[in-house]
Amino acid sequence: MSGSLVVVGLGPGDEALLTPAAAQALADATDLVGYGPYVDRVVLRDGQTKHRSGNRVEANRSRAALDMAAEGKRVAVVSSGDPGVFAMATAVWEEVEQNPQRWADVDVRVIPGVTAATATAAASGAILGHDFCIISLSDILKPWEVVEKRLEAAGAADFVVALYNPISRHRPWQLGRALEILAQHRDPETPVVIGRAVTRDDERIEVQALRDVDPEKCDMSTMLIIGSSATRVFEHRGVKLAFTPRTYA
Amino acid sequence: MSGSLVVVGLGPGDEALLTPAAAQALADATDLVGYGPYVDRVVLRDGQTKHRSGNRVEANRSRAALDMAAEGKRVAVVSSGDPGVFAMATAVWEEVEQNPQRWADVDVRVIPGVTAATATAAASGAILGHDFCIISLSDILKPWEVVEKRLEAAGAADFVVALYNPISRHRPWQLGRALEILAQHRDPETPVVIGRAVTRDDERIEVQALRDVDPEKCDMSTMLIIGSSATRVFEHRGVKLAFTPRTYA
Repeated sequence: MSGSLVVVGLGPGDEALLTPAAAQALADATDLVGYGPYVDRVVLRDGQTKHRSGNRVEANRSRAALDMAAEGKRVAVVSSGDPGVFAMATAVWEEVEQNPQRWADVDVRVIPGVTAATATAAASGAILGHDFCIISLSDILKPWEVVEKRLEAAGAADFVVALYNPISRHRPWQLGRALEILAQHRDPETPVVIGRAVTRDDERIEVQALRDVDPEKCDMSTMLIIGSSATRVFEHRGVKLAFTPRTYA
Repeated sequence: MSGSLVVVGLGPGDEALLTPAAAQALADATDLVGYGPYVDRVVLRDGQTKHRSGNRVEANRSRAALDMAAEGKRVAVVSSGDPGVFAMATAVWEEVEQNPQRWADVDVRVIPGVTAATATAAASGAILGHDFCIISLSDILKPWEVVEKRLEAAGAADFVVALYNPISRHRPWQLGRALEILAQHRDPETPVVIGRAVTRDDERIEVQALRDVDPEKCDMSTMLIIGSSATRVFEHRGVKLAFTPRTYA
């Protein structure tokens, strides 16, 4: 008898941003699978089993989760944010497509969530109020030239740009280079929103000028959103905010 | 005494995708403000007042909402999806910035939500699993040349592209032209996800080849997501799905 697999987005961190659909899927699961720190965000009820794994083992984790589901378990694969944005939904569907017979009967669903870019924008004004791009700076699974080409295109066409996976110990220089490329198309005063641990207890959000952004102060939990030429900065009740107007002249 | 204004995203439609933070803000409000059909999605409790307005009056609506908040009301401005993505968050902040004294004391917050693009992707695989752009095809507030330039850039740099506000009675030809531009950079077999009323009772989702997409079958409730050159189509349990792999060769 085949069970089910649901890919669940936990949202940016605050439990009040976890959708009821996601909460229900977590409560219904017999087995919770995911990157350790994400699985640890879920409080287990009696009878549930955690399967924590390391980072960068998405394919193995997906296969193990699908196999459990094929054995009859109700498996929840947990992701941060929205599971369809640089997260586990693609990893799971890739495996299903590669092995269509092996998991032919498994009921697979994806539950969307609030993704880091829109949560960060909401906490700092409305910088995503106009056309924007979402780019991962990780060059582990794609050539860096592709990233540069996309940054170039986004810069030249005056998109707002949200950067996922901006920097890590193994990828120390990519964020600096990305900002350099965007700076060729933007005024040095262009507003940049820099959010860390957004909606969590240790949230830290700043709006800085592009020329002041220091990659060394960013890490994998940082979301950077670089404005377009139209993005504006202002203060309200002592807080610096950024928005991109609806009208583009 | 100043009240508060919260911009709330209702999510794509299904109540199970309305976050607890958004539900709480709606329950706490004395006044609900927004485009009629969105306000009508909220079930009122005793003592709450609805303020329904037409489409395309976002600036007036924002000022009226801020004025009510300044008088001491707890105002919720409701938006569909995520209020920061082509919705009311920018409209409200634009007014605050233009009239810093008038609403200096009003507590303004934005609560993020699940946006249509990620909800549509979740319902049809994981087409947003790699770098993507979000573009509104409305040329009411921006010149059409800007839209074309961005479509060109997104096409040439091989982004997945999600189109908001694709077509309406007053903008009948723009979607066809947008698909034409993207087709210059994509194989005619490129997968396109076409979702209407996603997560609602009358949801209709299809995965079609780019060459088969018929703009006449789309309306303002339609979300189109056009794949990159890497996006793949497959079937699982009789349903056609699309995903964009994590690896880009």
